[in-house]
Amino acid sequence: MNHERIGCDELRGKITSAEHAASFIESGTTVGMSGFTGSGYPKAVPLALATRIKAEHAAGNPFRIRVWTGASTGPELDGALAKADGIEFRLPYNSDPVAREMINRGEMEYFDMHLSQVAPMAWQGFLGPLDTAVIEVAGIRPDGSLIPSSSVGNNKTWLDRARQVILEVNNWQNAALEGMHDIYYGTALPPHRLPIPLVRPDQRIGEPYFRCDPEKIVAIVETQAPDRNLPFAPPDETARSIAGHLLEFFRHEVAKGRLPASLLPIQSGVGNIANAVLGGLVDAAFEDMTAYTEVIQDGMLDLLESGKLRMASATAFSLSPEAAARLNADMARFRDKMILRPQEISNHPELIRRLGCIAMNGLIEADIYGNVNSTHIMGSRIQNGIGGSGDFARNAYVSVFMTPSTAKGGKISAIVPQASHVDHITQDVQVIVTEQGLADLRGLSPKQRAEVIIANCAHPDYRPALSDYYRRAREHSYGQQSPSLPGEALSWHQRFIETGSMLA
Amino acid sequence: MNHERIGCDELRGKITSAEHAASFIESGTTVGMSGFTGSGYPKAVPLALATRIKAEHAAGNPFRIRVWTGASTGPELDGALAKADGIEFRLPYNSDPVAREMINRGEMEYFDMHLSQVAPMAWQGFLGPLDTAVIEVAGIRPDGSLIPSSSVGNNKTWLDRARQVILEVNNWQNAALEGMHDIYYGTALPPHRLPIPLVRPDQRIGEPYFRCDPEKIVAIVETQAPDRNLPFAPPDETARSIAGHLLEFFRHEVAKGRLPASLLPIQSGVGNIANAVLGGLVDAAFEDMTAYTEVIQDGMLDLLESGKLRMASATAFSLSPEAAARLNADMARFRDKMILRPQEISNHPELIRRLGCIAMNGLIEADIYGNVNSTHIMGSRIQNGIGGSGDFARNAYVSVFMTPSTAKGGKISAIVPQASHVDHITQDVQVIVTEQGLADLRGLSPKQRAEVIIANCAHPDYRPALSDYYRRAREHSYGQQSPSLPGEALSWHQRFIETGSMLA
Repeated sequence: MNHERIGCDELRGKITSAEHAASFIESGTTVGMSGFTGSGYPKAVPLALATRIKAEHAAGNPFRIRVWTGASTGPELDGALAKADGIEFRLPYNSDPVAREMINRGEMEYFDMHLSQVAPMAWQGFLGPLDTAVIEVAGIRPDGSLIPSSSVGNNKTWLDRARQVILEVNNWQNAALEGMHDIYYGTALPPHRLPIPLVRPDQRIGEPYFRCDPEKIVAIVETQAPDRNLPFAPPDETARSIAGHLLEFFRHEVAKGRLPASLLPIQSGVGNIANAVLGGLVDAAFEDMTAYTEVIQDGMLDLLESGKLRMASATAFSLSPEAAARLNADMARFRDKMILRPQEISNHPELIRRLGCIAMNGLIEADIYGNVNSTHIMGSRIQNGIGGSGDFARNAYVSVFMTPSTAKGGKISAIVPQASHVDHITQDVQVIVTEQGLADLRGLSPKQRAEVIIANCAHPDYRPALSDYYRRAREHSYGQQSPSLPGEALSWHQRFIETGSMLA
Repeated sequence: MNHERIGCDELRGKITSAEHAASFIESGTTVGMSGFTGSGYPKAVPLALATRIKAEHAAGNPFRIRVWTGASTGPELDGALAKADGIEFRLPYNSDPVAREMINRGEMEYFDMHLSQVAPMAWQGFLGPLDTAVIEVAGIRPDGSLIPSSSVGNNKTWLDRARQVILEVNNWQNAALEGMHDIYYGTALPPHRLPIPLVRPDQRIGEPYFRCDPEKIVAIVETQAPDRNLPFAPPDETARSIAGHLLEFFRHEVAKGRLPASLLPIQSGVGNIANAVLGGLVDAAFEDMTAYTEVIQDGMLDLLESGKLRMASATAFSLSPEAAARLNADMARFRDKMILRPQEISNHPELIRRLGCIAMNGLIEADIYGNVNSTHIMGSRIQNGIGGSGDFARNAYVSVFMTPSTAKGGKISAIVPQASHVDHITQDVQVIVTEQGLADLRGLSPKQRAEVIIANCAHPDYRPALSDYYRRAREHSYGQQSPSLPGEALSWHQRFIETGSMLA
């Protein structure tokens, strides 16, 4: 490589191989890596480290590290290190299938956190010291400041907190990313915290670059490697139905005067259903919208292109290869409509509450009272993690959760008598949508919620059993605020574990 | 009465009887009442309304209203109206025993809310219109502005939103309350929300009085009646043990440099254990403390008197008769150390996060992973409500939950295999304390948490059964992130319902 992305002469002397860079990382230490939803994660050093770990293990030497990131990364990081059995402890979010299996076999400790809290808790100190930061950047400027990559995540905090820093300069990342980022350096620990001055999603409150003490940089590795960029699956009929119900709700709220005609800043999870909703917004009558969210996915890009979305604030991209190519081909135009921020800002409760976001997130299961499980299959097996859903759901102006009404070909009902694990309590769940319909739970008591969730959201195959459970709970429950029968409340999950289906 | 508390000539003409005032309230309408933890609630009009409702019922006429408050009130309000079967729907918090029984028999709908969200959600509109505000005040000034009483709660919002206003001027309230309050008029609906400028607990950001359109005032009733003011029970041995463990934790955190020597603004629930902790702080070495909390209770008053607590910000008092007498006798001196604010400010996530509160709340049960149930006995029977615990726990610098390890003479374990209802997810529960010991859960994976909770917090009578459940879950669980056995996870609750004891 021609080192042209490394504009600081002083730092060019630190350019080295991934193998040499990985040699700075010791077993038992904590490594803060960049990366958020498959974007901007380091792609060479973790692979080299995995190779080194396998060699150490082959020689009979223990070698495991503690890994902190922004959120999910890619196979070259979580996948490679998990395969090498190199991760002892992981936070705050994982979607890698290899790491997930290890966690669910009890072979890796996983600390599932609210994404807004990672940076402040790292500063708080109880997570222990951060030894090494491994950060992908798009370039290094002559003054040594760093041009962030396709995700910001916790990079500012890792660079500030780590004893030593390893940089990956990824030449694949579009040079036009420069200037898109807004890195806010005004956070602090209490009692020194001040109001965060952001009052609009399109406002810049920081600077476009990371600061980094050059003395701490021990290695710089150049790469030319794409982000994870999974293929995009077009929304299916179920996703389009869910989107349809939700868009109708938005139209109704605007008509009632409870939402402005441009809606309020939207937050959207990733995936098929989220993209269907964003696709629906392209064709809907709402104009001049904004997004204050974690991730810019394919549907968000379409919405920006359509002109309906005026701007999007996030902490990362999560694009298909096709969308990434579209973005890269037209970065200069898109750039003015996008801001990437640290995740402590993109997900900050103060800002989500102030802006009044419309939060739209997926779920694994909801119970008849509206408690939502976003993380644990059958109450024990982690899928990914809570991510930012708690940051958004509790502080949103309207908090929406969406899911198909069944999973596994109908063998799992997304609506159950009692959630086997709770991530979002009923107070934080205002609207539930399935392809069957929408339940507006705002202002309803638990019993009123149960009736509307069973009627509007449950699949017809499960509705009679849910009604039957609820009717018997109304007769026999210990108390009648949230009627329940503890002896059978989780029996659907037990039945699935035993028989492979929740159907009786 | 001599009307001396009513300084506005124009409004004196509206002085009337409680009976006449109550006649302005129609069946089927929504009434926003003052009152928070038994302070500052209207004491005459609700009683008169209850009498009227009973008469209407006796005449065969339906008469029920929807009641919104700050939090809990007193027997003259919730108790009287519940006894008259006059409440159709209640929010956001109740601790009245008569109302509780009706809710748990399924005879009253109860919407249990985060206390910070009541005012903004009332503005949002989906709760429906507010017909009448019934507000206790300490006086009316010549310009028609209102001197708040011993709680602020949602009064500002009720006065602004209601179509008509009924005032109770309570001559029992100390005239020296005037000037203690800080009513912030800067809140708005998005997209017009701005940063709330509070950066210290002792800062005033508003004005000492409520504004009220005199045209809306339909009746003014004069009263001379004390707040609920329940007797104070001195901390027992269990409460003192819990306090001891927690104070040791604080000392440890200060020694580690993770908390300042003056701690951070404390939030404390009410009750025996909370008072024991506050009592312990009187004798501890922390100086120059502050409180940013909901309620000023007896222990907080002691702490202020001792000089250890520099000031307390809250939304209400909740005092024993003795403490109320002490406060009233020395109000001028105490007043400079206290600020009462609207509950949307005392409980605002933005401010709790910024100030970095140390949140200390009670619980009904916690499970081995650290999920906390604060509201539902055996998963279905409401005790009081979530109150402000969610506002504080999620946004606190350190979130502590405290409980005796058993209840009902040992027949209920506060530590269970799985919580029968979840109000606080593991991410929001950092420390659990019982008289057995303290579990510092920060940065731990679910399995690590289970081990420390069972070892440190569970009662010895239940510890072997918890260990046995956990061991078998480790062997047989569907997944190993949070090992569980859905077929028996709630069996302890079922056993209690069937036999009156969780013990096998």
